Amino acid sequence: MKIERDEARILSGVRHGLTTGAPVTLVIENRDWPNWAELMDPLAPPPAKLSPRQQRLVKDITKPRPGHGDLAGGIKWRQYDLRNVLERASARETAIRVVAGALVRQLLERFDFRFASHVIRIGSAVLDREVDRADLGSLAAKAEASEVRCIDPAASRRMIEAIKQARRKKDSLGGVVEVIVRGAPAGLGSCAQWDLRLDSRLAAALMSIPSVKAIEIGLGFEAAGRYGSEVHDEIYYDPQGDPARQCFHRTTNYAGGVEAGITNGEDIVARLAVKPISTLNRPLRTVDVVTKKPARAMVERADHCVVPAVAVIGEAMAALVLADAFMAKFGSDSLVEIERSYRAFLESPY
Amino acid sequence: MKIERDEARILSGVRHGLTTGAPVTLVIENRDWPNWAELMDPLAPPPAKLSPRQQRLVKDITKPRPGHGDLAGGIKWRQYDLRNVLERASARETAIRVVAGALVRQLLERFDFRFASHVIRIGSAVLDREVDRADLGSLAAKAEASEVRCIDPAASRRMIEAIKQARRKKDSLGGVVEVIVRGAPAGLGSCAQWDLRLDSRLAAALMSIPSVKAIEIGLGFEAAGRYGSEVHDEIYYDPQGDPARQCFHRTTNYAGGVEAGITNGEDIVARLAVKPISTLNRPLRTVDVVTKKPARAMVERADHCVVPAVAVIGEAMAALVLADAFMAKFGSDSLVEIERSYRAFLESPY
Amino acid sequence: MKIERDEARILSGVRHGLTTGAPVTLVIENRDWPNWAELMDPLAPPPAKLSPRQQRLVKDITKPRPGHGDLAGGIKWRQYDLRNVLERASARETAIRVVAGALVRQLLERFDFRFASHVIRIGSAVLDREVDRADLGSLAAKAEASEVRCIDPAASRRMIEAIKQARRKKDSLGGVVEVIVRGAPAGLGSCAQWDLRLDSRLAAALMSIPSVKAIEIGLGFEAAGRYGSEVHDEIYYDPQGDPARQCFHRTTNYAGGVEAGITNGEDIVARLAVKPISTLNRPLRTVDVVTKKPARAMVERADHCVVPAVAVIGEAMAALVLADAFMAKFGSDSLVEIERSYRAFLESPY
Amino acid sequence: MKIERDEARILSGVRHGLTTGAPVTLVIENRDWPNWAELMDPLAPPPAKLSPRQQRLVKDITKPRPGHGDLAGGIKWRQYDLRNVLERASARETAIRVVAGALVRQLLERFDFRFASHVIRIGSAVLDREVDRADLGSLAAKAEASEVRCIDPAASRRMIEAIKQARRKKDSLGGVVEVIVRGAPAGLGSCAQWDLRLDSRLAAALMSIPSVKAIEIGLGFEAAGRYGSEVHDEIYYDPQGDPARQCFHRTTNYAGGVEAGITNGEDIVARLAVKPISTLNRPLRTVDVVTKKPARAMVERADHCVVPAVAVIGEAMAALVLADAFMAKFGSDSLVEIERSYRAFLESPY
Repeated sequence: MKIERDEARILSGVRHGLTTGAPVTLVIENRDWPNWAELMDPLAPPPAKLSPRQQRLVKDITKPRPGHGDLAGGIKWRQYDLRNVLERASARETAIRVVAGALVRQLLERFDFRFASHVIRIGSAVLDREVDRADLGSLAAKAEASEVRCIDPAASRRMIEAIKQARRKKDSLGGVVEVIVRGAPAGLGSCAQWDLRLDSRLAAALMSIPSVKAIEIGLGFEAAGRYGSEVHDEIYYDPQGDPARQCFHRTTNYAGGVEAGITNGEDIVARLAVKPISTLNRPLRTVDVVTKKPARAMVERADHCVVPAVAVIGEAMAALVLADAFMAKFGSDSLVEIERSYRAFLESPY
Repeated sequence: MKIERDEARILSGVRHGLTTGAPVTLVIENRDWPNWAELMDPLAPPPAKLSPRQQRLVKDITKPRPGHGDLAGGIKWRQYDLRNVLERASARETAIRVVAGALVRQLLERFDFRFASHVIRIGSAVLDREVDRADLGSLAAKAEASEVRCIDPAASRRMIEAIKQARRKKDSLGGVVEVIVRGAPAGLGSCAQWDLRLDSRLAAALMSIPSVKAIEIGLGFEAAGRYGSEVHDEIYYDPQGDPARQCFHRTTNYAGGVEAGITNGEDIVARLAVKPISTLNRPLRTVDVVTKKPARAMVERADHCVVPAVAVIGEAMAALVLADAFMAKFGSDSLVEIERSYRAFLESPY
Repeated sequence: MKIERDEARILSGVRHGLTTGAPVTLVIENRDWPNWAELMDPLAPPPAKLSPRQQRLVKDITKPRPGHGDLAGGIKWRQYDLRNVLERASARETAIRVVAGALVRQLLERFDFRFASHVIRIGSAVLDREVDRADLGSLAAKAEASEVRCIDPAASRRMIEAIKQARRKKDSLGGVVEVIVRGAPAGLGSCAQWDLRLDSRLAAALMSIPSVKAIEIGLGFEAAGRYGSEVHDEIYYDPQGDPARQCFHRTTNYAGGVEAGITNGEDIVARLAVKPISTLNRPLRTVDVVTKKPARAMVERADHCVVPAVAVIGEAMAALVLADAFMAKFGSDSLVEIERSYRAFLESPY
Repeated sequence: MKIERDEARILSGVRHGLTTGAPVTLVIENRDWPNWAELMDPLAPPPAKLSPRQQRLVKDITKPRPGHGDLAGGIKWRQYDLRNVLERASARETAIRVVAGALVRQLLERFDFRFASHVIRIGSAVLDREVDRADLGSLAAKAEASEVRCIDPAASRRMIEAIKQARRKKDSLGGVVEVIVRGAPAGLGSCAQWDLRLDSRLAAALMSIPSVKAIEIGLGFEAAGRYGSEVHDEIYYDPQGDPARQCFHRTTNYAGGVEAGITNGEDIVARLAVKPISTLNRPLRTVDVVTKKPARAMVERADHCVVPAVAVIGEAMAALVLADAFMAKFGSDSLVEIERSYRAFLESPY
């Protein structure tokens, strides 16, 4: 998951630093490919005799790992060499989502969108103070400065310690991340049809990140325990207020920026629960899909904690959803036109 | 939200009790329509002079309710008569989802799918015992028997008491519901593309239910605090096992039936956090969208607690997603063909 | 196909003459329904004993008509009562497309779109003079004034005669219609992906009209016989020119308004070949789908010539495609915003 | 358009000659790229000083070619360097469609689909004898053997002569091609919704091929001049007949294999009109998009006749549409399952 070391190449759709309107093709090459070239050749048959290194690479390939898609995918596509499943189900696939997200962020940030994400829990180590989202740049900087993307140094240390301890136990840890988007104008998404709701589309995009098992928007589960009078964000108006919110604002943001599937101009706040990765150095019980005999699950190289990476991917997925909704409202043919529409929106308050 | 009193009419696509292949049109008529006919006429202008009853109906229509789509939708569609927004954003819209869900359930139940849902929290009243999902029919029956759709009589009473207390305070309550789908064969959904993942599609469908602010699948947030060795479902095989799971099974179901976006044949278990409805008898602070002056939010007739209804809607949305994935795998042209494909799947274990 | 006698009711999405943002539901009731109510009841079983009238209605229902979807649909959906297929495959279904087209035309006409269609051939009777499209309103008026939607009185008479003769022979006739859309601004559609091309989307929409077997855009088949120097529309510029075309214009319009899948601002001109309807009073050879014995095809009530109706439907389908492309470029949230974007486009020439 | 010289590389989704379920990525590298690398660099600014060769490559880039997307795309995306438009609108893009088509044909041919295409007209040179489609392999072989993909040697010579003459005149020619698909089972597509109709989807796919301006299915325009009794394909049954057609057959195929948007099991026959390519050595009148002064259109390297290439692309597009419809009916998770469903369909006649 050391995404930052990978390098993306642009194969189409961008020229001299500007998109042209053609589809953008982005490629991240797998540096490990030479070791796999023969084993994964698209057309040639597998090598008749494997080198010792190759033997290690294909070892136990029929022993699905619980928690991964190995078995479900093997059943679905009738594959017994589970590498055919796991390569695509690999979290590596998310690297290119981050690159695509970085691309659309360049568009959105031009229209004053800001993105941040941070880790609020790893295993039993929890960020135990209020998150101050007022200065989002500072929040993002603190997260970036932390090895585990946590804004609080003491909590960071506890999280790192938890990861180390898990590693000593040959175990893994999950956690919780928060993704924040500021600057989305009021009126993106729709309540008119269920699949146009922005919360629905965000939930789909965020739940699609491997290892994510839960999504909250705004108060999320906490809303379930409160009185109605404690979960709705009262409405205020200031003629000098933020034109992207059409001069309305709230003093609370329990809704997390989305009401009835439409952005209200407040920060979009989502939290994602990340399960511990399922690749373990203490392999779990499984069944060999060929012999149907009990076995220990194969072991693939993996990190001990992907939680900080999920935060980064979450920002990217949120950016992709919002760019889509933003361009549906303000156009997508040229920056000139989008800017014109957006400026007109700011200058014509409701 | 007394959905069960409404009656759906079938306008197309069904003949003598069987679908024909044509689109199915379902209509639920609004019994309250006569009171609204003049005020909502599609073509005629609004009445020049309102009756006292009509005056009450249009009262305060410019005062958006916090927590509803009134303001965000008013900004989006440039509407100042907020009824134009709230009619569509109304939870009434979900009644037809329940009817559509009931229709596709007739298909799925023929292939041994079973559905259940129940309420595990209303406000501070929480179901405080383990949920036994072994006998799903019994679980569903207990839920149906409870006024608040809770399987435990004592917890039911506490929940009812909580609702009564909220009503006395002129306040409202949210809660948490659980939706369970049994019998989905292994191999629905896909890890091959993010928007084909079954967990992504379920999250979208469930988050689209009005008032829902969070979705968990399987362990959900609890997975964030556990070690990896405690969250993955070990794999076992029994040649006499369930053919819909291709004879594999798990002794735990932490994943909630979906691994890497693909069903693994175990129960699909999702939990939804429902916020208290935002219509209150103690109206919140807002701003009149015409005068831009501070005001109290308009009051629309509403229930004090929609949590049990959300459980029913959740079953319907889950059924719609699963029917789609099921027919993608087993065909959709005729029951004869679907049955043939499905039986062949059962008889040809992996 | 006397579409004009039917009346559409609006069930949702429109209030006091304006759309609200909610989905628009339109219904045309089948006036013949009372005769069919028992035979087509969605839930009740078919009547045990049929009245003589009902017996006539269900007569020969197992004898598929060549040229209709009866047999192909019967095979697809495993139906032996072919009414279950033919009801949906009926051209009646197109009536609601005309209504939906009329709705979006109200939007497009506000932005100076104009639509016209006329019949250029029925059977062997061909419109034998050049079509003058300069005054589109006059062209449309002439077509409306003709019983067969042909702009030339002499050709109209020949066409009517051809239809009468076909009727005398108990036969039917097809023909060719032309659909013209004026006012589409330059830049709708895209060459960036095959399914975004405007010509592709128009072809799909027009070919979907029952009985249509061919589509031409611009010169169509005639382009196949010409030299390149004779089929491309040279480009001119006039600073006082039409701003919707960004001041460019052509003196010919061989392309029919679309180049590389993008509108160029010239008239969009499409021609559709319509086959004679397949319901004949001289029934064709077929096979009873139950007995598998040779038979004569069942006879359903039908017109002798649907060509003028196809012209009307073609306008509607073109309007639906263009409204979609127009709103993708100029927005769809409110008329205020669309007008603002469109005016800015006009005022900022390329 | 010398597609056959290009070579496609497979980047994902295929291993040892079999697809894995992951998305298939195919790449054709542009051999001319080194000449363009600096001029088209995705990120670096354009070179400050152009080599003479580069100067030739960027010459006249502001002078849109009539008949191409240069001007319409330039307006759409606000580009003045029209290379940004024409690269994507280039027919080169279709090479990869042919590769994708070749891939899905391997699936379809396993289920007895056969594909053929041939040229029936180039300019004024027309194939003047009946096409015998009985032996499709032989038809395809004859087309392959001809330099212009025409099945008749004499007509081939006339077509080649026509092309030579056009070249001498520095002009270009279009033509007409026919695409034939045999073996599609009865029941693909649907009449239930306009965008599910197979004829609609075919029309969209075929009209999306650059230079195509018209599509006919079956009799096409000829149907417009005939009596109804002469355009419908009477239905016969033979218990020993072709099971893919469920033992039904026709003695004529005027419908071209599709009735009411559903395949009937007969050959799918489509004809495409191809306009002469718009790049001419006798450049047409245009306007410089920067100076707005009259100019002669830029000249891009191009063939004199792309008609045979369009036939090949047409086969590919038809294959893509049919594979989609085929897998919707028979499944797509594994070859084992598809074969099982398809065989069961053959063995269970209607």
